[in-house]
Amino acid sequence: MPAVALTRIDHVGVAVHNLDEAVERYRTTFGLIVVAIETNADQGVREAMLQIDASDAEAGPHSYVQLLEPLGPDTPVGKYLARRGEGVHHIGYAVPDVATAMRGLVAQGLRVLDERPRHGSLGASIAFVHPKDLNGVLTELVQAASG
Amino acid sequence: MPAVALTRIDHVGVAVHNLDEAVERYRTTFGLIVVAIETNADQGVREAMLQIDASDAEAGPHSYVQLLEPLGPDTPVGKYLARRGEGVHHIGYAVPDVATAMRGLVAQGLRVLDERPRHGSLGASIAFVHPKDLNGVLTELVQAASG
Repeated sequence: MPAVALTRIDHVGVAVHNLDEAVERYRTTFGLIVVAIETNADQGVREAMLQIDASDAEAGPHSYVQLLEPLGPDTPVGKYLARRGEGVHHIGYAVPDVATAMRGLVAQGLRVLDERPRHGSLGASIAFVHPKDLNGVLTELVQAASG
Repeated sequence: MPAVALTRIDHVGVAVHNLDEAVERYRTTFGLIVVAIETNADQGVREAMLQIDASDAEAGPHSYVQLLEPLGPDTPVGKYLARRGEGVHHIGYAVPDVATAMRGLVAQGLRVLDERPRHGSLGASIAFVHPKDLNGVLTELVQAASG
């Protein structure tokens, strides 16, 4: 019995210097659909959610490329860019219930970075797990708004 | 009309120091299913493919966490580990036809790192795109064996 059952890869979060340029690149190169561009002051980012697989618009759930531009140098993504440059910032996996998943991980000794679920993109409830506990991967648990 | 239509996130490739430890961590923490552990001498790695969503074993196609341990320090993953430590090494996106996708990207001016498709995990045909052309993300195009 695992601590947490992941159901799919929800999104790949990519830190970028210029959100508008990156959105245009992913849109024209790969045909991704921009479903949201929003500012998340809590996390210090302006971000875009780009849906993969335009041909399957009626089916769900979808996976996304999430592009993240920091609101300033003293934000988590701003510090990441200064230290490592553009690249994958985190991976978001879907879970049925984020609060249950958080308890399961804590019980197994992993460090969950949030005390309670917080607001993510597209109305999701999310929590982050410490990258040192998962081979250097900052990992986000995502309970979709409709889930 | 995009250069390439991605259909889904096929896998997240994670560079690790110790494959067996990492496999055990992802298996017990998240209930992922180990579907293959193989050595790819061409790419200088021993790797494991871990399927996400055990509850959906009959449906497909699946997404995977791919764990990568270098065969030595002079391999691409070995150099990555020395430079950046453990973490996300690349993202693999599914495409219907990798050769067509490669031509589409080259026509759009992106640098495809392979002249022709090569062998990937689980019998797939793959090609890599230069990370500098996609906001620092080493990007793999994956045509599944059954595709």
